[in-house]
Amino acid sequence: MDFQYSEDNLQMQRTLRQFMDRHVLPQNREWQRLADSGVYPSAVVEPLKALAKEAGLWNLFLPGLRDDEPGTRLSNMAYAPLAEIMGRIPWASEVFNCNAPDTGNMEMLHLCATPDQRERWLDPLLSGEIRSCFSMTEPDVASSDATNIQTTIRREGDEYVINGRKWFSTGALHPLCRFTIVMGVSDESPDAPAHQRHSMVIVPIGTPGFEIVRNVAIMHHHTPEGHCEVTFNNVRVPVSHRLGEEGAGFALAQARLGPGRVHHCMRSIGQCELAMELMCERALTRKAFGKHLSDYANVQDWIAHSRVEIDQARLLVLRAAWLMDTHGNKAARIDVSAIKLVAALLQTRVLDRAMQVFGAMGITPDTPLSFLWTWGRAMRFFDGPDEVHLRAIARHELGRARESLGSTAAYYNLA
Amino acid sequence: MDFQYSEDNLQMQRTLRQFMDRHVLPQNREWQRLADSGVYPSAVVEPLKALAKEAGLWNLFLPGLRDDEPGTRLSNMAYAPLAEIMGRIPWASEVFNCNAPDTGNMEMLHLCATPDQRERWLDPLLSGEIRSCFSMTEPDVASSDATNIQTTIRREGDEYVINGRKWFSTGALHPLCRFTIVMGVSDESPDAPAHQRHSMVIVPIGTPGFEIVRNVAIMHHHTPEGHCEVTFNNVRVPVSHRLGEEGAGFALAQARLGPGRVHHCMRSIGQCELAMELMCERALTRKAFGKHLSDYANVQDWIAHSRVEIDQARLLVLRAAWLMDTHGNKAARIDVSAIKLVAALLQTRVLDRAMQVFGAMGITPDTPLSFLWTWGRAMRFFDGPDEVHLRAIARHELGRARESLGSTAAYYNLA
Amino acid sequence: MDFQYSEDNLQMQRTLRQFMDRHVLPQNREWQRLADSGVYPSAVVEPLKALAKEAGLWNLFLPGLRDDEPGTRLSNMAYAPLAEIMGRIPWASEVFNCNAPDTGNMEMLHLCATPDQRERWLDPLLSGEIRSCFSMTEPDVASSDATNIQTTIRREGDEYVINGRKWFSTGALHPLCRFTIVMGVSDESPDAPAHQRHSMVIVPIGTPGFEIVRNVAIMHHHTPEGHCEVTFNNVRVPVSHRLGEEGAGFALAQARLGPGRVHHCMRSIGQCELAMELMCERALTRKAFGKHLSDYANVQDWIAHSRVEIDQARLLVLRAAWLMDTHGNKAARIDVSAIKLVAALLQTRVLDRAMQVFGAMGITPDTPLSFLWTWGRAMRFFDGPDEVHLRAIARHELGRARESLGSTAAYYNLA
Amino acid sequence: MDFQYSEDNLQMQRTLRQFMDRHVLPQNREWQRLADSGVYPSAVVEPLKALAKEAGLWNLFLPGLRDDEPGTRLSNMAYAPLAEIMGRIPWASEVFNCNAPDTGNMEMLHLCATPDQRERWLDPLLSGEIRSCFSMTEPDVASSDATNIQTTIRREGDEYVINGRKWFSTGALHPLCRFTIVMGVSDESPDAPAHQRHSMVIVPIGTPGFEIVRNVAIMHHHTPEGHCEVTFNNVRVPVSHRLGEEGAGFALAQARLGPGRVHHCMRSIGQCELAMELMCERALTRKAFGKHLSDYANVQDWIAHSRVEIDQARLLVLRAAWLMDTHGNKAARIDVSAIKLVAALLQTRVLDRAMQVFGAMGITPDTPLSFLWTWGRAMRFFDGPDEVHLRAIARHELGRARESLGSTAAYYNLA
Repeated sequence: MDFQYSEDNLQMQRTLRQFMDRHVLPQNREWQRLADSGVYPSAVVEPLKALAKEAGLWNLFLPGLRDDEPGTRLSNMAYAPLAEIMGRIPWASEVFNCNAPDTGNMEMLHLCATPDQRERWLDPLLSGEIRSCFSMTEPDVASSDATNIQTTIRREGDEYVINGRKWFSTGALHPLCRFTIVMGVSDESPDAPAHQRHSMVIVPIGTPGFEIVRNVAIMHHHTPEGHCEVTFNNVRVPVSHRLGEEGAGFALAQARLGPGRVHHCMRSIGQCELAMELMCERALTRKAFGKHLSDYANVQDWIAHSRVEIDQARLLVLRAAWLMDTHGNKAARIDVSAIKLVAALLQTRVLDRAMQVFGAMGITPDTPLSFLWTWGRAMRFFDGPDEVHLRAIARHELGRARESLGSTAAYYNLA
Repeated sequence: MDFQYSEDNLQMQRTLRQFMDRHVLPQNREWQRLADSGVYPSAVVEPLKALAKEAGLWNLFLPGLRDDEPGTRLSNMAYAPLAEIMGRIPWASEVFNCNAPDTGNMEMLHLCATPDQRERWLDPLLSGEIRSCFSMTEPDVASSDATNIQTTIRREGDEYVINGRKWFSTGALHPLCRFTIVMGVSDESPDAPAHQRHSMVIVPIGTPGFEIVRNVAIMHHHTPEGHCEVTFNNVRVPVSHRLGEEGAGFALAQARLGPGRVHHCMRSIGQCELAMELMCERALTRKAFGKHLSDYANVQDWIAHSRVEIDQARLLVLRAAWLMDTHGNKAARIDVSAIKLVAALLQTRVLDRAMQVFGAMGITPDTPLSFLWTWGRAMRFFDGPDEVHLRAIARHELGRARESLGSTAAYYNLA
Repeated sequence: MDFQYSEDNLQMQRTLRQFMDRHVLPQNREWQRLADSGVYPSAVVEPLKALAKEAGLWNLFLPGLRDDEPGTRLSNMAYAPLAEIMGRIPWASEVFNCNAPDTGNMEMLHLCATPDQRERWLDPLLSGEIRSCFSMTEPDVASSDATNIQTTIRREGDEYVINGRKWFSTGALHPLCRFTIVMGVSDESPDAPAHQRHSMVIVPIGTPGFEIVRNVAIMHHHTPEGHCEVTFNNVRVPVSHRLGEEGAGFALAQARLGPGRVHHCMRSIGQCELAMELMCERALTRKAFGKHLSDYANVQDWIAHSRVEIDQARLLVLRAAWLMDTHGNKAARIDVSAIKLVAALLQTRVLDRAMQVFGAMGITPDTPLSFLWTWGRAMRFFDGPDEVHLRAIARHELGRARESLGSTAAYYNLA
Repeated sequence: MDFQYSEDNLQMQRTLRQFMDRHVLPQNREWQRLADSGVYPSAVVEPLKALAKEAGLWNLFLPGLRDDEPGTRLSNMAYAPLAEIMGRIPWASEVFNCNAPDTGNMEMLHLCATPDQRERWLDPLLSGEIRSCFSMTEPDVASSDATNIQTTIRREGDEYVINGRKWFSTGALHPLCRFTIVMGVSDESPDAPAHQRHSMVIVPIGTPGFEIVRNVAIMHHHTPEGHCEVTFNNVRVPVSHRLGEEGAGFALAQARLGPGRVHHCMRSIGQCELAMELMCERALTRKAFGKHLSDYANVQDWIAHSRVEIDQARLLVLRAAWLMDTHGNKAARIDVSAIKLVAALLQTRVLDRAMQVFGAMGITPDTPLSFLWTWGRAMRFFDGPDEVHLRAIARHELGRARESLGSTAAYYNLA
């Protein structure tokens, strides 16, 4: 066992941190200003993308990159601390072509795209020319149980006809967004097991019948790229737009979730670290009743609890990334549920404390805290609500206990 | 001891509930639509105000109303359950002329306005013709310790010259807003004790040097009436605009806080009850993994804990209101700190659970939950952060213990 | 609504408090010394009982006392604050003939005893000549669901034959204990609904086949009167020993639980108040790192949170007592579940904080804290575990929501 | 970074687990029976010690063992998972000569014993022939601030004269206990800095003036070896009994704490894992209201939260052990505070949940749960209360923030 990042990785962290400090951070306010005015801040992002590509900080999230694909191939473990650094500025990941949901889409396409799909969709995604979105969650059913999905994908000859309503299609309003991947119930194998009845299909933006209904604010926060509600009304695409096998929807969804959750979690941790820095600095400089806030024992308790909670969560995430690298995504399934659960709860907790140290300023847009707190709350639903993960972890634990039933008898004191 | 509302009060509650259901609730979406489009929804509110006045549901909050003033004089105790009902719709209180910060301003004016001030400011407030705001909190100092206030009120002959920056001046953007009451450090008695050095002065909207800098979003939520940042730049008003005695700023601030906090707390409780109704209905109708959410023991736990927490908090608030009615606001000082602390924490807790039952829908604007949750968080700062109230309660408790030091000795087991 | 104890009640509280301070508290260490040496402290308790009876502080818990029965008839509401005062010393209730489980047994006997039962069992209980115990919980089944009870009560002619194993039969080792009331499944009406198949039967101590197996320590704490495991091995008693109707076991159990839970809860609150006094006194006198503990903001937070939690819980308990007095025990069923849940959790929370203020001393027998903390934890099981009460409260709330399904629709923002 | 135990270490874990299962666990009840009867269970322990020594499972905790000393030298990292296994049975560590406080005493003696001290005290400790105790905490001062220590060590010629009162001298009643190490204020350098005024001195059991006052029950639990209160009344020992330099008391105390805390924490984690096994098995086999407890979502939540909390805590402890191995105990100071804080809180939390799943049985001595829960609570004081560690962690974090003050400015949105 060894808790030290490799020297290479530490070097990469330093490079990325410098890039963030020199290039990204100074653009933070301009990005915000544009976004607040309703314009997607391409004017800020595109030049930074060019710089990042040049600096070799590109597609860092995709371990399986081929030689002819742009980017640095890093293990999940090696990418994790970089995601933590990127996470400090919510919009920064795109600069490195490492932002959701494109990362997940690239992973899935990398896994199963046909040569045509690769050329039309994957290559321009990998180069950052286009963006994409992912349409899975539906407003009318509990997202915690994905077999509830009601969108239909009906086959008619060489076409699929898609009908349904989705929301949280993140990125649909991005000016470069060119397609969404939609998950629905296929009519091709109605008698298959519940987890083999769904397919994924690529729907190009602009296909007749596809409509962006609205940009759903999350906790009153509108993002310029949108977490959109979209409808599919007799949307027709060729059968060749199907991703992978017919009925492989769940298998593909699982594939994208493992690494994606590691990314989300490490970004969360980066945001918690930022909150720590803000909270400590505020506590050291703000006075109430004649003392600095940093001299109050309750504020100290918040800081200390945050520190030990963040450190524990990071170790758990890194272990999950290591497990994925060494044993595969499937072996890490429960570990990935665990980190998803832990990181979102951590973020709300740490950010809540940081806001409290800031006083009323903490709830204004003058610091990143109120956004990060509410975002942490939203994270408790993204990729499945807490309860789905708690259930998965518990069932796994109970399953192991069932196998050794009776083994604790010797610990009872009664003869 | 008796835990039953009086028959009169129950009747008043029924009347108000009917009014809310018949007149206010049906306008909820229109109000929201207008507010979202940046227009103050006077078109909705003004007709409702006329109706409410006619129905005798007017100025219910002000126990000391005189015969020649419009409104129904109710004790704090009698008003409390009505505030709970109004609280279910965040904008409803204005319909009954019972909204902050005007209520607090009316209370203060009622207490100490000169005949001129009464005629010019109080009477039109009582009739609902104008609105007002209150400028106390400052961005640059810890609001937890009000002696930090830096805004200056300098006397020059018959005028006051005011300089400073305030925020959270709620209502400054209301189309009917005609004045703010500003609190600042007076230069008239520099050697007075720390709590007798501040005065309050009426500043009419439009006075040169007074500027609304921005409408500060709270948790990304912009309200149409504004929680504004305002500046006073050599603002000059006649000395006759001072409220009460010179140096009486803190005494007046205290006076407004007691009842105002009861109102806030009961509105919180009304919002928690609404969240309970939403959460239960959702749990009864939403399914995951083959069962209704209401059949899951964790969801049941959230509901049950919410029920007992709400009931306890309401009793505490009612007792504080009763104490104010029977022993005066000052005697209830610690009790009022207690309810302020309890209600805001309650609101975040109950709303958090309700959101979780709703799944992703809970974080969208499609339900009132995300607003009420973030508003509950903000409530933890309004009228003083948690820590100020915890400190006040603890010091009071420790003070009592100090008086009877040694009294616990007999409970130790050591001889 | 009125939050003031009546003048009579305040007088009774003063009288009781004086009695406790003058007579009971000075015997606390001697009681403890005897109990630790394994002797039931009758030498301490009996003289105090005589004094209490003389002072008119006797059987205060039983509202329905007849003129020819000794004691002061008080409503549940009037008794509640007295139970709070008695609760400060865990063994004090017996001094006033107000201790569990005798109180519950007296209530049940009062309700349904035959003249013979009354003369033989109730009268000497009311006079304090004898003690009793109650055998309900069984080690082999989940006590949360009382229909699980397995002890059998088989009728053979004019006799019942009882077989089973019970534990937590409190008081079985008391030197004056003369009988237990056992609850079991009757064989007389096997087809009755699940809640009408159990009977209660009086079993005199000494009946052949009845055996006290052991005194079960609770959290390593042995009480001299015992929380005993007992067995019934073909125990035979005449049919006339049945309490109430055949099949009425559950109805009787419910009858005893309402008031009993109020008593438990108010004693809990008395113990929390004692913990507050100890905690404050310790904080005021103990120094660490150059400051009194009372000057640390985290210690202040613990004190303040404890204060508001205790005050809220007390109000909830008093309201439940008031509801029982005014609407009957059945109407208060859910309220009684609520206070049972709240009080036990409160006790562990407040005591935990008090222990922390005491440092290592808090976990020794030198203060009452470690006992009261662990006792609070045990209270989370007595009269049903938390989960049973949470479930009852939630189902009640959901039931009300089901009746008005659809009523929240108007609060959604979607058209 | 690598999260895999080495193959050697895994083998050692298997060996130890087998030894525990085959030899220690079967003696658990007999050990308990003897201890409950007031006899130190040497009859059980001594034969097991012989077996363990033979099996090469001896003194595993001491990395620096010399070739002529018995035992297996393991790094802190390698020992940690073995401590976890030993921790499952509270008395098991002694079997492997790895029990507190002897481990800490051996570490200190190993560090600084003179040849005479080594021969007389260290060698027999290493071979398990004798036991020892450690007298630091005092009843009269806050243990959180060790500079409060009042016991005096006065030099008179070639002797030290010791006066004071200590408690929590664990092991003083062990039949093999031969000495205690006492910490006190030396009179030799009264003007030294606060942390260089204390010395440690060896006091042989039986020295006149040394008295064991009582065996202090912790949470009502008496251990046979005793957590004793002891007095030093003009106790005289030769100056050669001083451990290390005069004034080196704090330095030595720090030295023993690092590894000792890792041991404590890993034993805690072992106990939490045991609680998990018990809780899962109980949930799978116990029914209430027609369902197994394992089918209730709240029970599942408890299990899942416990799993992720335990896993996180273990990683944190292992990282601290790794840091001690690679960077020294001093570099790991804050990390050791962190694990001490985390592990004790974890133990109370996990055990609390496990008890709740067991129902009333959980609070009886029939399972190890009630002991482990209360022991976890006591752990929150051993080696310093939570607050000392929170304070240390916060001050460290604030110290780092102070160095880079101003660095967060770029994250504020205001221009």
